[in-house]
Amino acid sequence: MKDLNFDIYDVGFDIPAVPGMAESEIQTPALVLDLDALERNIKKMGDYAKAHGMRHRVHGKMHKSVDVAKLQESLGGAVGVCCQKVSEAEVFARGGIRDVLVSNQVRDPRKIDRLAQLPKLGARTICCVDDVTNVADLSKAATHHGTTIECLVEIDCGAGRCGVNSTPAVVEIAKAIDSAEGLKFAGIQAYQGAMQHMDSYDDRKAKIDVAVAMVKDAVDTLRTEGLDCDIVGGGGTGSYYFESNSGVYNELQCGSYAFMDADYGRILDKEGKRIDQGEWENALFLFTSVMSHTKADKAIVDAGLKAQSVDSGLPVIFGRTDVEYVKCSDEHGVVADPDGVLKINDKLKLVPGHCDPTCNVHDWYVGVRGGVVECVWPITARGKAY
Amino acid sequence: MKDLNFDIYDVGFDIPAVPGMAESEIQTPALVLDLDALERNIKKMGDYAKAHGMRHRVHGKMHKSVDVAKLQESLGGAVGVCCQKVSEAEVFARGGIRDVLVSNQVRDPRKIDRLAQLPKLGARTICCVDDVTNVADLSKAATHHGTTIECLVEIDCGAGRCGVNSTPAVVEIAKAIDSAEGLKFAGIQAYQGAMQHMDSYDDRKAKIDVAVAMVKDAVDTLRTEGLDCDIVGGGGTGSYYFESNSGVYNELQCGSYAFMDADYGRILDKEGKRIDQGEWENALFLFTSVMSHTKADKAIVDAGLKAQSVDSGLPVIFGRTDVEYVKCSDEHGVVADPDGVLKINDKLKLVPGHCDPTCNVHDWYVGVRGGVVECVWPITARGKAY
Repeated sequence: MKDLNFDIYDVGFDIPAVPGMAESEIQTPALVLDLDALERNIKKMGDYAKAHGMRHRVHGKMHKSVDVAKLQESLGGAVGVCCQKVSEAEVFARGGIRDVLVSNQVRDPRKIDRLAQLPKLGARTICCVDDVTNVADLSKAATHHGTTIECLVEIDCGAGRCGVNSTPAVVEIAKAIDSAEGLKFAGIQAYQGAMQHMDSYDDRKAKIDVAVAMVKDAVDTLRTEGLDCDIVGGGGTGSYYFESNSGVYNELQCGSYAFMDADYGRILDKEGKRIDQGEWENALFLFTSVMSHTKADKAIVDAGLKAQSVDSGLPVIFGRTDVEYVKCSDEHGVVADPDGVLKINDKLKLVPGHCDPTCNVHDWYVGVRGGVVECVWPITARGKAY
Repeated sequence: MKDLNFDIYDVGFDIPAVPGMAESEIQTPALVLDLDALERNIKKMGDYAKAHGMRHRVHGKMHKSVDVAKLQESLGGAVGVCCQKVSEAEVFARGGIRDVLVSNQVRDPRKIDRLAQLPKLGARTICCVDDVTNVADLSKAATHHGTTIECLVEIDCGAGRCGVNSTPAVVEIAKAIDSAEGLKFAGIQAYQGAMQHMDSYDDRKAKIDVAVAMVKDAVDTLRTEGLDCDIVGGGGTGSYYFESNSGVYNELQCGSYAFMDADYGRILDKEGKRIDQGEWENALFLFTSVMSHTKADKAIVDAGLKAQSVDSGLPVIFGRTDVEYVKCSDEHGVVADPDGVLKINDKLKLVPGHCDPTCNVHDWYVGVRGGVVECVWPITARGKAY
């Protein structure tokens, strides 16, 4: 056993691996990235966006990692990131991302004040607005700090969360932004989050068709009012081909494509094939170890609810059909092992049910290539929920 | 607005509040502790244990906080903590807790090596064993480091996870521990985790009766073999009165009683009353703010899946019957607001569905008393999953 000098007692933190270590030695539970698969996913989406004349503003809320975002810029031609919280945006801006969209509403006075300081870090700063009363607050903070906040009007095109749902409401807010000191009207945010996980391609298309019609009406009307949209943004891993071919959107905001997860993997492409069987590769794995096996047909592993989120279903064991993850408690997973093939300290690669909230409980990504640890990246914006 | 000097750009982290701040100014989403309620819960359980001649080894896996554990020692007479992972145990030992049980199996060679070094931090170190082949590994590491690891034999008394389920198996492992260099046989671990959340008191009692019978048989048999159990440990928030009156157990391991959560709160006491309506007080709240309200009957709040775990159900809005948290996505919660009473930046106090994995996504507890922030405690062992 190589001495790894974890320095746990002096430094006060520990990491699950160090570069050069064999994959089999990674401390579990740990999030592991297959770097080859990750790079292929990133390049594929980047190439797709380029070929379709779309900008790709990658969704940093999924991975919360400056390192991954930079790979998406260098390898996938990403124009910047979007994220959901001001505290996340701070992390990306401080990490060197120069174009950051908070694809969400910012209403709290302190958060608005922090947002207005982001341009001082060298980042183009964009946020969403769905309420005309927000405009004055954003303007006041930007003016106070001598900065510019660019604003997108958010349209609720089906997700049922934030956003307005009529063109007159869009126009009213856009005009208020356009005439407010310290603000710049930058376009439309219209992400249809509710349809991304529908299995059927045709069902997803029907939902996006409705969204595209709403957005087109808003964009066309704004143009007649003299307000051009620099950004018409939206699109996720389950829909980017629809937005790309809409003639209305010009920016994609995909997140999960880079890592994949079990829930997204189950949705079907145009030919009825699961999207994790060709379109995207599983690049994110939760490594777990067998720690108890007192029953012949059941193994207990060390990854439970504190190592993953099961909101979208249990994890799937990658590459195995002989064993199945069947139950999850705080620190344990129960793995059905009908043939008793698992042994103590055997490692399993789990594909998490839902990547975003799973990444948010870990501090590190272990990057692996060819069975060897190549890098250990901090999950820079983990827990940044403000 | 008071200047809070978050120093976000220099320090690289942010905290949701500072002492002296009004409760209403806490940045959301944030975990907030009602210190009066917390102290009453801790004292009540401590008094109960003392009156019943039980030691209370509080479960640190729930809160993952050295500060809370120390309060449980000073105010609740706790004899130490239990936790589920070696990396958690390191945090508690480094924080000054002198008696730490890893109430779980430790099988990985590196983890065993780390466990064997814990006594060097001044902590009595205990772990569980459910496989005789583990004994030699633990012994070798303790001998190597010149330390002593105390070992409990874990009985699976109904949870269906780790642990052996026959007295002969218990005796075999206990004897192996007793004769191994560097190890000390310390007793039995028998936590019935699967029944804690059953609503009915009688259903829970029936499950614990079975557990007690198993444990009694093992303890009695061990005694005839000359092996006395210093610790017979188990018991949770839904069962501690059963173990306390069993005449077999001598240590409780309660966790959730201190904070409470929505799922535990629903279980019923002997009189058929919810345990959060008298037995325990809600001391843990997830503060969230309204950030969008474009639909008349629906408010969007800023606490979603990255601020809580919904594995045991959605959060409940404390003290309100007019509004209801009905949906949770990554960063948003949807709150039904049929009468349109909520306004932007209104704060709601959520009672999380499940406290343990919810605490594990946050970095800070904000302690509040009389509407004023009194302390901000780091969630010291957050993310310590190894």
